[in-house]
Amino acid sequence: MEDNRQRESIESLGEFGLIDYLTRQVKPAHSTTLKGIGDDAAVLNFSGQDIVVTTDLLTEGIHFNLMYVPLKHLGYKAVVVNLSDVYAMNATPAQITVSIAISKRFNLEAVEQLYEGIHMACAHYGVDLIGGDTTSSLTGLTISITAIGSATREELVYRSGARPNDLLCVTGDLGGAYMGLQLLERENQVFKVNPKATPQLDGYDYILQRQLRPEARKDIPELFRKLGIKPTSMIDISDGLSSEILHLCKNSGVGCHLYEEKIPYDEQTKAMALEFNMNPLVAALNGGEDYELLFTLPLADFDKIKNDPDITVIGHMTAKEEGAMLVATGGSLIPLVAQGWNHMGRG
Amino acid sequence: MEDNRQRESIESLGEFGLIDYLTRQVKPAHSTTLKGIGDDAAVLNFSGQDIVVTTDLLTEGIHFNLMYVPLKHLGYKAVVVNLSDVYAMNATPAQITVSIAISKRFNLEAVEQLYEGIHMACAHYGVDLIGGDTTSSLTGLTISITAIGSATREELVYRSGARPNDLLCVTGDLGGAYMGLQLLERENQVFKVNPKATPQLDGYDYILQRQLRPEARKDIPELFRKLGIKPTSMIDISDGLSSEILHLCKNSGVGCHLYEEKIPYDEQTKAMALEFNMNPLVAALNGGEDYELLFTLPLADFDKIKNDPDITVIGHMTAKEEGAMLVATGGSLIPLVAQGWNHMGRG
Repeated sequence: MEDNRQRESIESLGEFGLIDYLTRQVKPAHSTTLKGIGDDAAVLNFSGQDIVVTTDLLTEGIHFNLMYVPLKHLGYKAVVVNLSDVYAMNATPAQITVSIAISKRFNLEAVEQLYEGIHMACAHYGVDLIGGDTTSSLTGLTISITAIGSATREELVYRSGARPNDLLCVTGDLGGAYMGLQLLERENQVFKVNPKATPQLDGYDYILQRQLRPEARKDIPELFRKLGIKPTSMIDISDGLSSEILHLCKNSGVGCHLYEEKIPYDEQTKAMALEFNMNPLVAALNGGEDYELLFTLPLADFDKIKNDPDITVIGHMTAKEEGAMLVATGGSLIPLVAQGWNHMGRG
Repeated sequence: MEDNRQRESIESLGEFGLIDYLTRQVKPAHSTTLKGIGDDAAVLNFSGQDIVVTTDLLTEGIHFNLMYVPLKHLGYKAVVVNLSDVYAMNATPAQITVSIAISKRFNLEAVEQLYEGIHMACAHYGVDLIGGDTTSSLTGLTISITAIGSATREELVYRSGARPNDLLCVTGDLGGAYMGLQLLERENQVFKVNPKATPQLDGYDYILQRQLRPEARKDIPELFRKLGIKPTSMIDISDGLSSEILHLCKNSGVGCHLYEEKIPYDEQTKAMALEFNMNPLVAALNGGEDYELLFTLPLADFDKIKNDPDITVIGHMTAKEEGAMLVATGGSLIPLVAQGWNHMGRG
């Protein structure tokens, strides 16, 4: 099965390309399928409310490093990652299934810690764990979670509804999870050289929490209802702002202008970036794992959100021909490219 | 994380015990959850039809050996395994999600072969592939599938409804998948010693198909409707007849008498068992992977099924106090023990 030419082409397809490629012949045919592959979650109808289903598979050494990720946090995060996709549909999660494969390296206590985090997330987000599997693997830990939620037909928000002149908005702040990861990796390197060294993590609790124990934006669909608005398109930020904006543009058939100077950062993100001598813009655009919501709104809704501290307008959509562009602080236009977390990168 | 005492206790819990243990605090709380952990599939209600959700995680070296399992067959089988759980609820599958993690060893052609089998199964069973993930792993192949189906409230069949005197019935024949696996493993050993040897597989097409490319019993829920019957309990046979009978007994609070002489075998299963100098009973009781349906019926329904070539009455349920017993051909009673495929066995 070794074939360098083939392997090269799997690499060049990347994570999103590969699944597109593999599922190119799939045509939803069942009468209950309203939306199959191509959004944050699939939408089904079993009369009455629409249900949404989303799934994620996390593997050790690729998505997480148990050298510095506590298993309890990992369990919590694995759930959050899935629920974030449900909120990105403007839906409410209701159930999850969890399957894990573990090698002999993991004892019962370790698996319990993992499930403790899973149970905590279920309690916090009000979802039921309704099934799953525990099985063996020859090496490492694998976690697969499927989340199911519901919404009325009118509430659902897809990636495909953005129109030129819509406002491009984001919740919270960006780049924190990536800078938290950089900090953890630096301290892990120090630890490898000197196991007696004390990790230098003081003052960075926020970015560490963003990386190790993120939350999904449960509050945002509720906020939308309160404000009486409905996004024209929405996606969660798991792979970096660039990649997510490109998804919205591609699915909606529009372009966009993203303003560098509008991107929201936490102070710790900026301070850590300074320490690493890097621009926090890189963390926001390509870092990923922020689990904030990125969405578009009709211009007419500006007054409804302009004073909300949790929402920042970071740009606007344009005609498709104008492309997806970063408007740099100096005013120059730079095409956005997807360089986010690519777990098919096989790096 | 190494701790022999802890590892010992994870081993002693086994596959079913571990998930019971880990989820012991789970109490379905959401109003849409009718049935959480504890059956072949979870049951949700989003008004109108009830939906069922089931999930499986398959890992290389544990659930399959790519030395003799073609990837296309593996993809097909991975879907079938999940759909079998939906049919075991007397429900009709409608959608699946598929997530895979692959190491660098797999090229695009390999992944395509896997998906070809997945697509074939979707077409054959009339289900939509509605989502999933492709990601990297450090070693080996992992496949995670979630299946969703629906049924009316009245149609659903759980593991828990069997009553004393109910007939214990099984579809098709048993032990074939296990004997197919023995044959494949034997030829694989021969191949390791002499790569030029021609595999001796002639005349065993049926048991090879049972192992490599099994089908789920899509026809059985349809047959029940046609015959105007509804099982009092049902489960699919993935882990061996002993283990599945014990599930029905435990969940229904009954005992049973299983008659050795009634267990249906295909001629190839018997012939292969003879070649291996073993009793096909062992393959049926402990072999697993037959994906037939095991169910109980009120005695009054006997006339409706007695002439159906696809259904065999293999015993009857008893009071709980009588235990779950194999009635051996000589008439002696032997307690059934679960010795099926235990993927937490870590052997």
